[in-house]
Amino acid sequence: MKALEQKILDEGTVLDGDILKVGSFLNQQLDVDFLLQMGKEINRIYKDEQITKILTIEASGIAIAVAAASVMHKNVIFAKKSKTSNVSGEVYSAKVHSYTHGTDSQITVPKDYINSEDNILIIDDFLANGEALRGLINIVKQSGARIAGCTCAIEKGFQHGGDELRKAGYRIESLAVIEKMSPSGIEFRK
Amino acid sequence: MKALEQKILDEGTVLDGDILKVGSFLNQQLDVDFLLQMGKEINRIYKDEQITKILTIEASGIAIAVAAASVMHKNVIFAKKSKTSNVSGEVYSAKVHSYTHGTDSQITVPKDYINSEDNILIIDDFLANGEALRGLINIVKQSGARIAGCTCAIEKGFQHGGDELRKAGYRIESLAVIEKMSPSGIEFRK
Repeated sequence: MKALEQKILDEGTVLDGDILKVGSFLNQQLDVDFLLQMGKEINRIYKDEQITKILTIEASGIAIAVAAASVMHKNVIFAKKSKTSNVSGEVYSAKVHSYTHGTDSQITVPKDYINSEDNILIIDDFLANGEALRGLINIVKQSGARIAGCTCAIEKGFQHGGDELRKAGYRIESLAVIEKMSPSGIEFRK
Repeated sequence: MKALEQKILDEGTVLDGDILKVGSFLNQQLDVDFLLQMGKEINRIYKDEQITKILTIEASGIAIAVAAASVMHKNVIFAKKSKTSNVSGEVYSAKVHSYTHGTDSQITVPKDYINSEDNILIIDDFLANGEALRGLINIVKQSGARIAGCTCAIEKGFQHGGDELRKAGYRIESLAVIEKMSPSGIEFRK
């Protein structure tokens, strides 16, 4: 998505440790009109699939998932990162390692919200090592639902999580794939 | 908002400890078409204010804030609950106590995203003791911006956080205010 690549070039900052800061529009500040453009692109990619629900993970995945859902008119389910007192009943769960925070977390989705009749689109903001997507895929598999595919706004191609999942047979459609980045520049996959 | 009161009656469950579970549409599963209806109502309430930005708090405030922003065409900023490695630079911060989780957290917003020219609408999903709103109000005050008002989807009127903030002079417009609730029924404020 050319507009997203341009926005990353205009507003993104590369920090040490392979961190891309896009806080001005995707993470912390949300440029909602731009998120809706991304939502339209996600709808275009998956319009021939009979998506029943969108699955994402808190916190920053929620914004892009809601934007896509407002175009696709589907419900969003978000995985929570730890079991809290207002999650009751039976849940699907999976362990996810965060390289950003250096921690493991248990992600959970109540069994009520996904079942074997569903055809799930997984959406997240970033794809790096693919840990979050693997956790979400694991949860969908537990439910018996079909996985239509996964879309992330920004894939760090050089961290290979997306390519490993593609090799494993999943449809992974990222809106912008970064091949190389450093404080002096960003190069996108063609 | 009558449609929200009806949705709470149809889909909400009251658990012990004054917990209202609305996971089927507002929290964990998001009924995005319904969130957009709430967004239209928020836009109707504040249409005569010159709102410049919407401020919310992760995680479940993001969904309703994005829905409102997609109607109002404003950016959303969300406060994070702890300082992470991809928040850099100077931040506004405030302490917030969570009665649900029994913990204190530090919420932060980078100074880049709010300034004294802004007229901020604060949006959250739940208003109970008002702790989260007070933290967000504190952050806006630090920035020197104006606070146009606060809107929450569901206010637990019997916990008085909303009324205390109204007495302090803030415009607090909740889409549904629960006066009493128990496992046997829910009564709304007229």
